[in-house]
Amino acid sequence: MPLSGIRVLDLTRIISGPYCTSILADMGAEVIKIETPGEGDPVRHQGVIKNGLSWYFANYNRNKRSVTLDLYSQEGKDILRRLIPKCDVVIENYRPGIMDKMGFGDDALKALRPDIIHCSINGFGTSGPYRDRPAFDFIAQAMSGFMSLNGGESDPPMRAGPPISDLVAGMNGALGVLAALLRRERTGRGDSISVSLMSSMIGLLSFQAANYFASGELPPRTGNDHGIVAPYGLFETADGQVAIAPSNDAMYEKFLDALELQSLRSHPDFQANADRMLNRESIKAAIEARTRQESSRYWIERLNRYGVPCGQVLNLRDVFDDPQVADQEMAIDVPHPDGQQVRMLGFPIKFAESPCLARAPAPSLGADTEDVLRELGLPESRIQELRAKGAV
Amino acid sequence: MPLSGIRVLDLTRIISGPYCTSILADMGAEVIKIETPGEGDPVRHQGVIKNGLSWYFANYNRNKRSVTLDLYSQEGKDILRRLIPKCDVVIENYRPGIMDKMGFGDDALKALRPDIIHCSINGFGTSGPYRDRPAFDFIAQAMSGFMSLNGGESDPPMRAGPPISDLVAGMNGALGVLAALLRRERTGRGDSISVSLMSSMIGLLSFQAANYFASGELPPRTGNDHGIVAPYGLFETADGQVAIAPSNDAMYEKFLDALELQSLRSHPDFQANADRMLNRESIKAAIEARTRQESSRYWIERLNRYGVPCGQVLNLRDVFDDPQVADQEMAIDVPHPDGQQVRMLGFPIKFAESPCLARAPAPSLGADTEDVLRELGLPESRIQELRAKGAV
Repeated sequence: MPLSGIRVLDLTRIISGPYCTSILADMGAEVIKIETPGEGDPVRHQGVIKNGLSWYFANYNRNKRSVTLDLYSQEGKDILRRLIPKCDVVIENYRPGIMDKMGFGDDALKALRPDIIHCSINGFGTSGPYRDRPAFDFIAQAMSGFMSLNGGESDPPMRAGPPISDLVAGMNGALGVLAALLRRERTGRGDSISVSLMSSMIGLLSFQAANYFASGELPPRTGNDHGIVAPYGLFETADGQVAIAPSNDAMYEKFLDALELQSLRSHPDFQANADRMLNRESIKAAIEARTRQESSRYWIERLNRYGVPCGQVLNLRDVFDDPQVADQEMAIDVPHPDGQQVRMLGFPIKFAESPCLARAPAPSLGADTEDVLRELGLPESRIQELRAKGAV
Repeated sequence: MPLSGIRVLDLTRIISGPYCTSILADMGAEVIKIETPGEGDPVRHQGVIKNGLSWYFANYNRNKRSVTLDLYSQEGKDILRRLIPKCDVVIENYRPGIMDKMGFGDDALKALRPDIIHCSINGFGTSGPYRDRPAFDFIAQAMSGFMSLNGGESDPPMRAGPPISDLVAGMNGALGVLAALLRRERTGRGDSISVSLMSSMIGLLSFQAANYFASGELPPRTGNDHGIVAPYGLFETADGQVAIAPSNDAMYEKFLDALELQSLRSHPDFQANADRMLNRESIKAAIEARTRQESSRYWIERLNRYGVPCGQVLNLRDVFDDPQVADQEMAIDVPHPDGQQVRMLGFPIKFAESPCLARAPAPSLGADTEDVLRELGLPESRIQELRAKGAV
């Protein structure tokens, strides 16, 4: 697998960090997840629980090992100090400064392993006036400008449904770690990486940011309409609605052909895209008068045949019943030790030679503590002692 | 830089692919962007244009070289065939099958360079019933289930403002390429990678997918409310609104302290989170009666001091005027040959030792054609011949 032989020390919890380390674990890295004795990652207790298992936790922690360690205890810190030199990468999502306070700042990490790669996933960055603020997905969505672009024109600024600032920060963390690993292969040097929820969201502002920079004009929220193209959006059919995106004049022509609405071509209100933007509602009405006559299925088959990008708005049931999603194995069933088959998301990155794999289910809390301590050379008696003290 | 010495042949256009290759270019890879003679990447003509330059194009194509090549001509294909062995990675966002038709399928690429890494960024995957459909960000958002989770309860399913399926697919492509490069360092073997817009969006379905898998129940759209926590969301202040996310009971207690609304603690309707969910509107009203008495600035300072995650909903002007965003250098000014300072998005991944850099502005169309042809060993006379034929 792409990351076979890479060992990651995972000090993260909740979602941004665990998503980052799950990307690496899915690609074959050995990820050692450190959890608080007794409690563990809070996500173990979140979302729908079946047979004592959070399927949300199971999704983001497959392919990992779990070691309990009380990092407030001297014994816990000692073990961490022995573990770090065995690891290529340390990933954490503490608030900036906490690792230093714990005695594991960048200099300390480097002293333990000179070519260590350290990745901090944080809310706002490791410097600046908001460095110490508590972070949360919703807040990063609000403060990044993303929400100012999301939602309908008459809606308030709208958060995205999924926690995308956590997820995109996790992806940026994994990108940083992989790039640093590559550099280490070639130079022998480690590095220290910081990615924040807020900057990760700013990184998605795309053409809206570019246009704002160039013009000084604030982009509006446009809901499902396109900012500069019409017709475009959701159109009603006989049995639902279809998303249609004829994004340029050539596609618009194909769209009219597919609709058999060549008559619109000569309509004075709909000549150029600029006219159609001005008369967005009336061209939508003219098109829907036609699309309502047939089913969504009919239109999707027909419009795709004409080369017009379109598709149904699917809910999660439709998505995971969809033959394309099945073909792409975007839901996988992973057997768990208690006999449960836990369904979880599949792998969006497909390698032909070295595919991502679900090699192991998410571990129970501390499942690998003793194995990892033994690998560090601790004798059984010491392990029992640490256990008795609650340090592991 | 992390990717110094890595050469990427970039056959992509529009945004998913150019974003992928810009991530690699920002980290130091040499990216050779192949464009159609005369036209180039359509994004050159999109968004706000200043002094003949699309700032949208400038953002996603900084740090790249531009070579014009007519890939429909025999001469163009010959040059591509000479270029591939010099490149570590080939990235393209054609529809699946087009590379094969052009004579550059996986086997052909491997014959030209046995350890080549090929990355296809596509709409739906390289197999399955929708493989050949035209793809578009809006359609991937609709078909992935993402839109079914985005928007308010009474809204229709809502597309995210920025083209996030393009962007997240680009990030997945870069993750795949970096992992494959690492594997190549260790094994000497290349790989072929596919990432799709649709699967990339499905990969973001997060706890909503996990809960659906576990329960069979479809998650609702909740707008700015949290699905299972109250109070939470946007709250009005004397001069605007603030996003507040007290995500658990401990934070809720801190929130009441910060508001000096300890009286709510004994209110029978607001005891447990479950009660507060049932009375979401009335607790929101009680809190807003208080938050409306002071400014947003006041509340943000105070709530953060109490450890309650909160922040303003910023529009793009606010964002790029924000001191934290300035500290994190999330807008950078890149000098262009015509004297323009082009403002663009900064780098969300911060490396301490080997930072991402804007080494060069986006190239004018074909700016590097002759240099690259010379590097391939073509004599001047042949270059002029190709130019005359329109092959470059």
